[in-house]
Amino acid sequence: MAWRAAGGNLPRMQITILGGGGFLGRRFAERLAAQGHLGGTPVTGLVLFDLAAPKPVEAPFPVTCLGGDVASVTDVAAAIPPGTALVVHLAAVVSAAAEADFDLGLRVNLQGTLAVIEACRKLAAPPRVLFTSSVASFGGGQAALLPDDARQVPTNSYGAQKAAAELLLQDASRKGFLDAVSIRLPTVIVRPGRPNKAASSFFSAILREPLLGLETPLPVEDGFRVWVCSPRRAVDWLFHAATMDTAPLGVDRGINPPGLAVSVGEMLAALSPAERALVKREPDPAIAAIVGGWPAEFAATRARALGFAPQEGVPEILAAFRADDLDATRADRGL
Amino acid sequence: MAWRAAGGNLPRMQITILGGGGFLGRRFAERLAAQGHLGGTPVTGLVLFDLAAPKPVEAPFPVTCLGGDVASVTDVAAAIPPGTALVVHLAAVVSAAAEADFDLGLRVNLQGTLAVIEACRKLAAPPRVLFTSSVASFGGGQAALLPDDARQVPTNSYGAQKAAAELLLQDASRKGFLDAVSIRLPTVIVRPGRPNKAASSFFSAILREPLLGLETPLPVEDGFRVWVCSPRRAVDWLFHAATMDTAPLGVDRGINPPGLAVSVGEMLAALSPAERALVKREPDPAIAAIVGGWPAEFAATRARALGFAPQEGVPEILAAFRADDLDATRADRGL
Repeated sequence: MAWRAAGGNLPRMQITILGGGGFLGRRFAERLAAQGHLGGTPVTGLVLFDLAAPKPVEAPFPVTCLGGDVASVTDVAAAIPPGTALVVHLAAVVSAAAEADFDLGLRVNLQGTLAVIEACRKLAAPPRVLFTSSVASFGGGQAALLPDDARQVPTNSYGAQKAAAELLLQDASRKGFLDAVSIRLPTVIVRPGRPNKAASSFFSAILREPLLGLETPLPVEDGFRVWVCSPRRAVDWLFHAATMDTAPLGVDRGINPPGLAVSVGEMLAALSPAERALVKREPDPAIAAIVGGWPAEFAATRARALGFAPQEGVPEILAAFRADDLDATRADRGL
Repeated sequence: MAWRAAGGNLPRMQITILGGGGFLGRRFAERLAAQGHLGGTPVTGLVLFDLAAPKPVEAPFPVTCLGGDVASVTDVAAAIPPGTALVVHLAAVVSAAAEADFDLGLRVNLQGTLAVIEACRKLAAPPRVLFTSSVASFGGGQAALLPDDARQVPTNSYGAQKAAAELLLQDASRKGFLDAVSIRLPTVIVRPGRPNKAASSFFSAILREPLLGLETPLPVEDGFRVWVCSPRRAVDWLFHAATMDTAPLGVDRGINPPGLAVSVGEMLAALSPAERALVKREPDPAIAAIVGGWPAEFAATRARALGFAPQEGVPEILAAFRADDLDATRADRGL
């Protein structure tokens, strides 16, 4: 009975994942279940919250699955029970959807974050809050190598809402309501699943589809550069941010993590010649114009100094996709 | 009947001032009433909106005075009638109050701005929206000379809420819902009235109180530097922003206007020796710590190129106070 030997006043690690049914939320939950602890403290409970109650994960601790509206303080407060020490706030309406439906983006990305702040304030002790912001909150374009103090001048509603939410979480941290770390994620590749209408969809598709033996269009030139990370590394960063000392951050809670600046040509070079032949050059100026506004590289000096692991190269990203997702994607798509 | 000779399709200039009962709102309304037009277009109507219905101004056009809640879309929409071409959004909970009451600050400074966006979207044509943001949305401190692309890392709730509201207005401009210009005002001196509990109150008091023949404390050293503007110049900037061509702004709707970087000692040098003797050195480390976080100077290169007039020196600021406010302040305070 080891848990009794440690005394009655055990450290608790009750965790909530908002957006727990999504791509990164699921991976965070699975890794948590696999290791059973966070920074050495045993996890005492996990709440997975999403629009529809997520499927549970198998875990050595109780898992509660809740459906609800992230913009409702009542729903969010129900998902963040007393004693919650960590809230992973991934609930978001992504770029293309927020651009198509301005009200929905504001509601989820901005009012949702205000509901999280409100729910966290009600706790006896301020929880760590991890927030995923985005490279889309910056402008700059292909020529950019953004320093850590680069200003966020977003050219899309998703980026504007994320940048505004960062400011509010930062202020709530200063006030002692919570203890936020906002990670501005690069473009995540290789996403499992299938091509979708997001402008950035092709960055995953040009690697994933050839591995499935399928043709796929490339809408930009081979020299086009993009700031990327793997799903694995994104989850690594969230785990690091969950347990890091936030005192050195001071007021500034935004992290530009050390992603990888890579050209499309360098990505394709990691495929075999036969796979590469499945990538068809189909220039699309509309897509090029959107993704061309995003910065191609960040210095990420501060994040490196704070212990965020740099993204490895494209071969490692590809190997991770083969290990983690290729079989499931093939099965899902009936291939 | 000049108005008939010009034809049936006259340009309309219906204007709303939110926060129309406040210090700057009142001055904007009075100047508008005095000139009767904006950029050569006759003003066809003015709505003054505040928490309590403001007193009307005497004007050669109809003036409607409304009381309401700036965070209520219904109230704000009632204050922005069809055909409104300009909304001057000055409604705010200022720094000390937003710090003392986090919920009130969020409600007015953030949700109020969202209500303005919502009301403007309902108009047939996107109105120009002038928004007063603040030097308090920046950090930096005494050593800072902030470039135009300086990042806003606010160290107070007021500044965080203003910076977040700027992002949302900027995105609403990009979407074509409205056409915003956000002016990040310096510390405005000389404010009429009496000393209050705002940390920045003494910047006005060390000039105003001696002119009234009264002693006043100086909580910082004579070498302390501050970025200031006069009430007159702040209103000049709003008038310039009301009619400027916003196309050159592109996505970036934030303006750091060309204020004046001045030391407390330089401010006091504009007083007579007898007036200066009324300023009592009473160092206050708490006040020094708050105002010491604000940047002391901005480059304001872009604003100058866009035609925003630079702030004149302290003697002119003092002369404007004598001309505009000294007698009224003396009367108000029974001196």
